[in-house]
Amino acid sequence: MASEKELIERTARKFAARAKPDLRIGIGDDAAVIRPRKGYEMVVTTDAFLEGVHFSIGVHSPAEIGYKALARATSDVAAMGARPLYFFVNLALPDSRTGKWFDSFLAGMSRAAHRFELVLAGGDTTKRPQVAINISVIGAVLPGRAILRSGARPGDLLCVSGRLGEADLGLRVIQLGWDKRTKWKRLLRKQFYPEPRLELGQWLAEKKIASAMIDTSDGLSTDLGHICEASGVGARVWAAKIPKVKIPNQLGLDALRLALDGGEDYELLFTVPRRLAGRLPKTISGVPITVIGEITRERKILLVDEQGRTTQLRNQGWDPFRSRTTRKQG
Amino acid sequence: MASEKELIERTARKFAARAKPDLRIGIGDDAAVIRPRKGYEMVVTTDAFLEGVHFSIGVHSPAEIGYKALARATSDVAAMGARPLYFFVNLALPDSRTGKWFDSFLAGMSRAAHRFELVLAGGDTTKRPQVAINISVIGAVLPGRAILRSGARPGDLLCVSGRLGEADLGLRVIQLGWDKRTKWKRLLRKQFYPEPRLELGQWLAEKKIASAMIDTSDGLSTDLGHICEASGVGARVWAAKIPKVKIPNQLGLDALRLALDGGEDYELLFTVPRRLAGRLPKTISGVPITVIGEITRERKILLVDEQGRTTQLRNQGWDPFRSRTTRKQG
Repeated sequence: MASEKELIERTARKFAARAKPDLRIGIGDDAAVIRPRKGYEMVVTTDAFLEGVHFSIGVHSPAEIGYKALARATSDVAAMGARPLYFFVNLALPDSRTGKWFDSFLAGMSRAAHRFELVLAGGDTTKRPQVAINISVIGAVLPGRAILRSGARPGDLLCVSGRLGEADLGLRVIQLGWDKRTKWKRLLRKQFYPEPRLELGQWLAEKKIASAMIDTSDGLSTDLGHICEASGVGARVWAAKIPKVKIPNQLGLDALRLALDGGEDYELLFTVPRRLAGRLPKTISGVPITVIGEITRERKILLVDEQGRTTQLRNQGWDPFRSRTTRKQG
Repeated sequence: MASEKELIERTARKFAARAKPDLRIGIGDDAAVIRPRKGYEMVVTTDAFLEGVHFSIGVHSPAEIGYKALARATSDVAAMGARPLYFFVNLALPDSRTGKWFDSFLAGMSRAAHRFELVLAGGDTTKRPQVAINISVIGAVLPGRAILRSGARPGDLLCVSGRLGEADLGLRVIQLGWDKRTKWKRLLRKQFYPEPRLELGQWLAEKKIASAMIDTSDGLSTDLGHICEASGVGARVWAAKIPKVKIPNQLGLDALRLALDGGEDYELLFTVPRRLAGRLPKTISGVPITVIGEITRERKILLVDEQGRTTQLRNQGWDPFRSRTTRKQG
């Protein structure tokens, strides 16, 4: 049976290669010591990724769990327009997952850390009947450049990156038990390996183009609600404009519903003052950007269909205290 | 049934009063934005406090759990000689604990936050069958002044604050079921309301007196082992000098054993170069300081009894992957 110390050492070894000069003390002391980057503000986010709530051991491989745990947390740094630097991981594991499972988990997390240029700076492990992963990520952003949820103003354009509903589509394929069929595998990628839109977020912060931003973790209908509430505004969303995922006929799913309420896409939803709209390219760092609506003074979120009919868009996204499905939150 | 949003709002409200000017964005956005203190380094620590591992709902009241969760994490900041500034809390709760229990929990945590001058900067809540609390604390320390585990040198004196074994004594009283008797209540204080030695830690960092430091969370025999391993040294501990807790006869416990292996005292264990020993007062900020041994070149930890006999002191402290008792780790 592995001891706590051994697990921490295995973790530290796995992530040891990438030291950064401003991390004075990393894993192995009572706390990490970080020299703040001169002329930058710090961005800090924490995120829980829990077995039976956010993932299932039978469905998600250890490598996918490790990757996704870090990707989810890092997406919150992307949503501020910041650059991620360090992360901390607190793990709870049953004894049965301290062997091979743990190594694969670390390999997946290491792949994410490498990709997002994140350095492990601390954490610990504890024994528990179910796997629980708590991640903290620290990033940096130029002073005053962090893009908040609260900056949207009436008249701003509402934009989104990538396509919506893709991660939820993967979840549906899994729930149908079709995820082992080769033909369907490509539909699972976004569910297992989400991509925080780091370059896009930083581009928007650097160019000062976005007035408000959030990542779509709970679904457009919920996440747009967060922007509107924080900004004291409403929005009008044009259903036809939403970049939806293509859904195989056999699944009988509504692509619009999936795009509106499906969580875990980790795309960026942001607002752009109309006068800056001309400076917004069609793709940024290879990610397509689509204008899907506009911000309104009236504090309601309306969905406009292709016939011009308007309905109120209700928050149908995920709340762990209301739902029983395995989904993302944060 | 409370929604996630409502729980977050209740939490934010409870901690809203104490804003700090360098917290630009606190709870409520994708991440917190912090302006680093000019001329300081940042100290970051994360800590898990889990039902069934570190505490029991039947034994610890919600207020005690809230207080202790934050105190434990803050003790790691004290152990670096740093000043705590901000904290983040990720909660997992069953539905049944979102009402009164949650309010008392917040009241306990708020009491700790007030006492340690900590401001809540972020977090979230998720539904789970058992209570799990993950805390991150951010602090500040003057550049190069953080006191590490790795700085102990042969000849240094080994010192400890307060008394050892006090928190474990409280745990034993609880395990005997005697904790409801008025007579025994005073023995429980340290188990329920540990006191991170913040002022002492900062004093030692400011005066540059300590060469290495750790907080006694797992017990002297384990925590001294961490210092010795990180510093590449050994130690000789004088049993008679260890400040032990007074144990009522009825309990039939060995005060030395409790002092050596009892966890959760959150005292500071530190080393002082011999030439600086004269500058060490008997009490610092009201906390007694005792010299209990010395650092040696030979990489063994020895216990010297009152007759001058020497035995090897083995790590008997707590490891969650070896033990089944409800105790502290980290």
